[in-house]
Amino acid sequence: MRILAIDSSGLVASVALIDDGECIGEYTINYKKTHSQTLVPMLDQVRKMIDLDLTTIDAIAVAAGPGSFTGLRIGSATAKGLGQALNKPLISIPTVDGLAYNLYGTDKLICPLMDARRNQTYTGLYEFKREEEGWSLEIVKAQCAVALEEIIESINKRNREVIFLGDGVPVFKKQLEEQLQVPFSFAPASCNRQRAAAVGTLALSYMKKGKIQTAAEHEPEYLRLSQAERERNEGKKHGN
Amino acid sequence: MRILAIDSSGLVASVALIDDGECIGEYTINYKKTHSQTLVPMLDQVRKMIDLDLTTIDAIAVAAGPGSFTGLRIGSATAKGLGQALNKPLISIPTVDGLAYNLYGTDKLICPLMDARRNQTYTGLYEFKREEEGWSLEIVKAQCAVALEEIIESINKRNREVIFLGDGVPVFKKQLEEQLQVPFSFAPASCNRQRAAAVGTLALSYMKKGKIQTAAEHEPEYLRLSQAERERNEGKKHGN
Repeated sequence: MRILAIDSSGLVASVALIDDGECIGEYTINYKKTHSQTLVPMLDQVRKMIDLDLTTIDAIAVAAGPGSFTGLRIGSATAKGLGQALNKPLISIPTVDGLAYNLYGTDKLICPLMDARRNQTYTGLYEFKREEEGWSLEIVKAQCAVALEEIIESINKRNREVIFLGDGVPVFKKQLEEQLQVPFSFAPASCNRQRAAAVGTLALSYMKKGKIQTAAEHEPEYLRLSQAERERNEGKKHGN
Repeated sequence: MRILAIDSSGLVASVALIDDGECIGEYTINYKKTHSQTLVPMLDQVRKMIDLDLTTIDAIAVAAGPGSFTGLRIGSATAKGLGQALNKPLISIPTVDGLAYNLYGTDKLICPLMDARRNQTYTGLYEFKREEEGWSLEIVKAQCAVALEEIIESINKRNREVIFLGDGVPVFKKQLEEQLQVPFSFAPASCNRQRAAAVGTLALSYMKKGKIQTAAEHEPEYLRLSQAERERNEGKKHGN
């Protein structure tokens, strides 16, 4: 099973090719360029480096949201375009699940934190459970857009050690340190941001369960309204 | 602290830039091209993509061995060349330790397995221990070149669940399944091969402890003799 994976849900842009049990190529940039400058050029460089014939892939996995609205649109548009051109299915991976998968094999609770602005975080809670074939990612609390206090309360209630990761960590660190009542730590640089290899590896299990879409069906999952939609709704409410 | 990291110890070629708590760019190829075709071009692509001024890095981390002799020489030569040109220190990371760091935060025993040919594996045993700042990689059995039976015996004695990773896994899988007496699993595609980001992140802790070298001092750690050296010694023994 060959899966081309894309994640441009945050500042990170990442592409990878997963071929069954191995990652054949991965390119990740966590830098202040727009994804329109990075994602497709990176994909093209990887393609050349591994002599990849794109018609040989079985599916395209994409971090489908939540995240930066523009980033999600670029990632989804790229995946949809490739899917339609190549006639391959898409696999939508929830962004926060993909982030959590970075901590494969831990026994701690995993809490990805993305900075969602407006005093919110895109977050969720996860753990790895033993299955016959190895360790499998289980959702303890599904991805959501909430105030930081809400996820902290949810963690404190569970009374389990937790590892945080994601671009929300530097933003919320002080508040976490003040309010957490359980042991906690922060994932290090090698595994604390989005990686397309994690998205693609998680997609393998989706593929096995038949959780696929056509390119036409696929849509990003924003989890909340865009600024323009909010303002339009506000306008309607006030009779504008 | 900015660390440029390189791993070309196996089939994988990988480069990364770690800037304190974040990986700013990483490019990894696990493909049958020679490292002379991949490593420096990949480094150059990443450098351009993240507008990296190489004079701003603090050190160069390299997976120093064991591994493929040619791969190690290319990695070390690249690191030494950069180190001398830029007048920056080198940080030698034991290859097997770097591999183990892929499983950050697990409570299981970690056993990287590299295919060392001649019925041997480059391996070691590791665990993560809690320290004040988070989880730190601890060596249970230091990296070594041994027959697979030897590491299996060492694991069976410890009576702890283990996760395997590395390019030795597909080679030794059947033998592991037959001989292991403890619960075990194999790391998935996203974290089962060398990654420069793991080498660079581990190097941060080396740097803090002052475990650095000059470019002139650095040498790869082969762990055993090359074929040419073995044959010369055999020749001497037989009076040739």
